[in-house]
Amino acid sequence: MTILKNDTLLRALLKQPVEYTPVWLMRQAGRYLAEYNATRARAGDFLSLCKSPAFATEVTLQPLARFPLDAAILFSDILTIPDAMGLGLYFSQGEGPMFERPLRNENEIHALSVPDPAAELRYVMDAVSEIRKALDGRVPLIGFSGSPFTLACYMVEGRGGTEFREIKTMLYQRPELLHHILGINAKAVTTYLNAQIESGAQIVMIFDTWGGALSHAAYREFSLQYMQQIIAGLKRQHDGIPVPGIVFTKGGGLWLEAIADIGCDAVGLDWTIDIGEARQRVGMKVALQGNLDPSVLFASPEIITAEVKKILTSYGNGSGHVFNLGHGISQFTPPENAAALVEAVHTLSREFHSGST
Amino acid sequence: MTILKNDTLLRALLKQPVEYTPVWLMRQAGRYLAEYNATRARAGDFLSLCKSPAFATEVTLQPLARFPLDAAILFSDILTIPDAMGLGLYFSQGEGPMFERPLRNENEIHALSVPDPAAELRYVMDAVSEIRKALDGRVPLIGFSGSPFTLACYMVEGRGGTEFREIKTMLYQRPELLHHILGINAKAVTTYLNAQIESGAQIVMIFDTWGGALSHAAYREFSLQYMQQIIAGLKRQHDGIPVPGIVFTKGGGLWLEAIADIGCDAVGLDWTIDIGEARQRVGMKVALQGNLDPSVLFASPEIITAEVKKILTSYGNGSGHVFNLGHGISQFTPPENAAALVEAVHTLSREFHSGST
Repeated sequence: MTILKNDTLLRALLKQPVEYTPVWLMRQAGRYLAEYNATRARAGDFLSLCKSPAFATEVTLQPLARFPLDAAILFSDILTIPDAMGLGLYFSQGEGPMFERPLRNENEIHALSVPDPAAELRYVMDAVSEIRKALDGRVPLIGFSGSPFTLACYMVEGRGGTEFREIKTMLYQRPELLHHILGINAKAVTTYLNAQIESGAQIVMIFDTWGGALSHAAYREFSLQYMQQIIAGLKRQHDGIPVPGIVFTKGGGLWLEAIADIGCDAVGLDWTIDIGEARQRVGMKVALQGNLDPSVLFASPEIITAEVKKILTSYGNGSGHVFNLGHGISQFTPPENAAALVEAVHTLSREFHSGST
Repeated sequence: MTILKNDTLLRALLKQPVEYTPVWLMRQAGRYLAEYNATRARAGDFLSLCKSPAFATEVTLQPLARFPLDAAILFSDILTIPDAMGLGLYFSQGEGPMFERPLRNENEIHALSVPDPAAELRYVMDAVSEIRKALDGRVPLIGFSGSPFTLACYMVEGRGGTEFREIKTMLYQRPELLHHILGINAKAVTTYLNAQIESGAQIVMIFDTWGGALSHAAYREFSLQYMQQIIAGLKRQHDGIPVPGIVFTKGGGLWLEAIADIGCDAVGLDWTIDIGEARQRVGMKVALQGNLDPSVLFASPEIITAEVKKILTSYGNGSGHVFNLGHGISQFTPPENAAALVEAVHTLSREFHSGST
């Protein structure tokens, strides 16, 4: 394999010395970039874009052509697994992702099986290989999946939502059914992420978008436990190089200690927590990724720079910090503001790593 | 004034001994009750219901006729103040509350003024008096308002939302403008809640529905600070009886210590935090209200009872706990499940108060 020319992100995730704080942006290949919209228009729609390795490669590389980001992230959707299970993922205008055939009875739940990454999810593996080739070692490639609970939300509700009536009714009234779904999802995510690693993903991340909607106790039982199973089943290195794992539960700040305990290398943070406080709580155990409010990117470059500085200062000296937003970048972000963010992180962070060489 | 026949809630909020844990439900007069829907149909729509003291009294008392709740809560909307400021509150089917004339420029912001509770908000004061009369001392009446920041979200965005693009752009780019709005809102809420107290509200609560969308630092500067101003300006007693104040920031679990420090008597909790842990963190300072996930009410009475027991056990012995949901009751809740909840709290909590008489 090609040697990584910029391995700053890998080192930060492993808490090894770095010269500056690495930065990437969740949803960095997205609608705020005109070139992304152009490619998407050529592909037809979002799902066609995801399912074409050539188009996925093209859009994955677009933000790197604009900004000196320290990572590429596979262009894909968090819901590829339930789609591969046959639930029929589609995107409805203004509604976000939906499933044509959500799980509606026990028979459907018991009929679920783990998709074969080499078959139903082959297009993802092909995209990973093609992106790795196109990157040519420039920066590491991050692979990812939705968490078992987040996948289950969509599988049971048929869509994202704010009330989670179906899945929470199942959680409280028929917990064994939900555990059955989650057990399969955990196996599916493990297999899927390991296949991404085999295909070339150098870091993997689990997006637990909806775990924060659970109670403190239900979170541990129905979301965290299954992410722990995944982490335990992941290949921890490939070609002799460590493959760090990142876990991100949006709204999980109260549960940091529990999350940091599942064996992941890094924990993602949203903007509701002071990153310095988070470091005090769990920073001996894991690296931290975050945590700028994406809305800061609606303000001027001067203000963006000031907010970046606050986060860098709060984290303080030393490695173990990956700069990111606390959620995906908004489609309404002016690209020059993303540029200002990356520039500010790279420039201002050097003083916090002056002890390293 | 009539003597309170059931002052359990008042005592719990003041951390005085009680015989059992009092319970009420956010949005307890609402669409899950057939009689509410019938009254609302007679009134025409939600806003007409709010604006008619007779109808508001009728629906406020409906849940008390079904369940032995320990409080009534004024039937009203959190957005009455901006409506009284002239922004034109309306409800769009499936969209929630919206404003016809959201704040769109600096002139409009500088033209804002504090509404007179005896004029534009007279209908609320009339409802409070009429409900107090109808209650005849049975249980205390809770008055309320939205928090300054939550009001500002709707005033600037024109609606509730998930991205808060307008208000967060203002927050980061033009903080002085947002502070101007929030300063007026804080005065308006203080005046409004004091007028509710004069009219008969025996407890007041501030609903900070959207404060949890802020960063840790922005929350303190743009939401908590203004709730502190309100608390400092509230009448702390009326007719010689203390009037406790409750503050509830949904998603504010990480900031509990800061919230408990603003001088309120009680802090509302959503279901993401273990109430025993919350008590350890701030229970010397404030009473705690919460914190069952409203989705538990979709399960069977047996499961509801078990979940109630977990919360009571986690809080432990002694006063200072008001049982509630961590968010408003869902319109899809079977009323018999709300009955099971109230029954479970009243029955199971007695053992935790056996030291008091």
